[in-house]
Amino acid sequence: MRDIFSLRKTDGSARRGTLRLAHGVVETPTFMPVGTAATVKALTPDEVRSAHSQIILANTYHLWLRPGLETIVGAGGLHKFMAWEGPILTDSGGFQVFSLQERRKLDDDGVTFQSHIDGSTHRFTPETVIAFEEALGVDIAMVLDVCTKLPATREALENSVRMTSAWAQRSRAAWKSEQTAVFAIMQGGLDLELRERSAQEIVALDFPGYAIGGLSVGETREEMYVTARASAALLPEAKPRYLMGVGTVRDIIMAVDCGIDMFDCVYPTRCGRNARAMTRSGEYNIRNATFARDYTPVEAECDCYVCTTYTRAYLHHLFRANEMLGPRLLSYHNVYVLNDLMRGARNAIDCGEWAAFRNTHVGNHVGEA
Amino acid sequence: MRDIFSLRKTDGSARRGTLRLAHGVVETPTFMPVGTAATVKALTPDEVRSAHSQIILANTYHLWLRPGLETIVGAGGLHKFMAWEGPILTDSGGFQVFSLQERRKLDDDGVTFQSHIDGSTHRFTPETVIAFEEALGVDIAMVLDVCTKLPATREALENSVRMTSAWAQRSRAAWKSEQTAVFAIMQGGLDLELRERSAQEIVALDFPGYAIGGLSVGETREEMYVTARASAALLPEAKPRYLMGVGTVRDIIMAVDCGIDMFDCVYPTRCGRNARAMTRSGEYNIRNATFARDYTPVEAECDCYVCTTYTRAYLHHLFRANEMLGPRLLSYHNVYVLNDLMRGARNAIDCGEWAAFRNTHVGNHVGEA
Repeated sequence: MRDIFSLRKTDGSARRGTLRLAHGVVETPTFMPVGTAATVKALTPDEVRSAHSQIILANTYHLWLRPGLETIVGAGGLHKFMAWEGPILTDSGGFQVFSLQERRKLDDDGVTFQSHIDGSTHRFTPETVIAFEEALGVDIAMVLDVCTKLPATREALENSVRMTSAWAQRSRAAWKSEQTAVFAIMQGGLDLELRERSAQEIVALDFPGYAIGGLSVGETREEMYVTARASAALLPEAKPRYLMGVGTVRDIIMAVDCGIDMFDCVYPTRCGRNARAMTRSGEYNIRNATFARDYTPVEAECDCYVCTTYTRAYLHHLFRANEMLGPRLLSYHNVYVLNDLMRGARNAIDCGEWAAFRNTHVGNHVGEA
Repeated sequence: MRDIFSLRKTDGSARRGTLRLAHGVVETPTFMPVGTAATVKALTPDEVRSAHSQIILANTYHLWLRPGLETIVGAGGLHKFMAWEGPILTDSGGFQVFSLQERRKLDDDGVTFQSHIDGSTHRFTPETVIAFEEALGVDIAMVLDVCTKLPATREALENSVRMTSAWAQRSRAAWKSEQTAVFAIMQGGLDLELRERSAQEIVALDFPGYAIGGLSVGETREEMYVTARASAALLPEAKPRYLMGVGTVRDIIMAVDCGIDMFDCVYPTRCGRNARAMTRSGEYNIRNATFARDYTPVEAECDCYVCTTYTRAYLHHLFRANEMLGPRLLSYHNVYVLNDLMRGARNAIDCGEWAAFRNTHVGNHVGEA
């Protein structure tokens, strides 16, 4: 297994690194916009790229059900199907399947579930999921894990760690493709003893990267920070670390401070569709009447296409008139902002100014979601 | 009043001309994509331009109600508000107001109506509408007319002609702006005697251009062609002719053949949102199961961004998954196709090959909407 990660610099616990993947180089820390159904909602791949995205995330659960593997393989893989040439990471579908609650049945070998689209029955095992992700041709494939909502009993968390480790071992054995790097997932909820057990078991299997799973699932923000920091410290320094499903500006900054390298979240595009503008200095709703005749850009300091072309008054009008261009433009701006924030974070770590950068940006986003 | 139109060539009744407007030159015959609410639905102005649109249409009725004149004037006019630098034509709102049926009251001076958005009361007169369009800063402003649905009584049609002529005269007197060319509108339904009366009355007022109104409002296709041809012949050769609300590929080709120079319709963008692909050789619905694994472009012969980047299988998937990118991409392709068709029409007239071009394209679109 080739080494995909170089840790270039640290500043406190914050890390500056480079990922070398089959479809390109990714500078970390990095944010991955989510393209659930092989499309980052409302944006073309060209726009995703021009907004400085380096890598995107797609969802195994959704692609498995629609359009299905044969369609994507027939297109020559996921990159060709969706016309995105850069790196792609796929989650394993574990999180979505375990969210189905009444519609899934877990056993030691895998999980059987019903499609939310048409009720049809499907089965994920560690092996079928890795085979699916490899067939998509993605750069990073996550192993199938057993995720638990919080709060959870000690027994449920222990079970999640035990099964996730066993499935990681089977995923490791099933992994064949040279172009796909498989990442394992740590579980254990807020229990640091279980986090340590989970880390030991998956690190022993020697994966090219590790994710911290089972967070951002119901705990408080403080609990998440404490657990993420402790979990990151349990992972090997030389391997990339990925905090799944995070998130907002504040959470990402805090997680970089915990020593995490990779993030994904639907947050910027979901906000974009819901008229919520993200800026370096905070968030606001563009539908508010106060913006009806505000002829300044969405964010005065932003040099993105949207901010250099349109005004708040125009975006306000588009959202009030339910015009599709509104969600399009605001999604673009929000993704751009988050990518730009990560570029700033990388710079700050490079220059040994991380603490100041962190304090400024966390201060700007106090009280937000 | 400056001369805005040069008739460069004719081939049969088909005409090849050039419009010189405040925001640029428009080669005719031309199609104008509709940007009802100051946005061509789902597309950015850059895309509208890269799809070879020369001029767009915006709706006075909709902009009057939302965002309202003050907001647009505050932005520096409609061009700046929506970031479209090319020519804009606005309709007068007459068509929309007369469609309101129970919510409007007509008198000799103007028409009072209730907003479909919030029920508020508004009043259009020939003078207020011209003032509104001039304040928007558009290149071509249509006069307020009285439009009648078909079938209509002779009395209703006579009334429509009489009032439209009287209002045209008042609009002519109200017109002040150097940068806005005001076009009059002919009425008269399918009654050629009334069409002649209407033409004589408005042509006597010497407008820089004329529209054929009151068609595409319930009559058969054959009736429309016959009336459009007869109406076009009643208009001065040296002035541009605009057939309002048309349309489909077949209707546009036939109307060019009648001697019309300008067209507008929501058809390509509405089709785009509804999964209907327009091509040079006919239309189809991209949601059809037959396209699920069709890895060819939307149209093999098309060189637009969508056709050179994505497959039918991908667009099929986007529409099935209700992803916003589907309507975006198909709207772009459809507008591109219609603009490209007009470019082909201009070429054909330039080369004296109009009849062959017409026959090929009408033949390709038999049986369509």
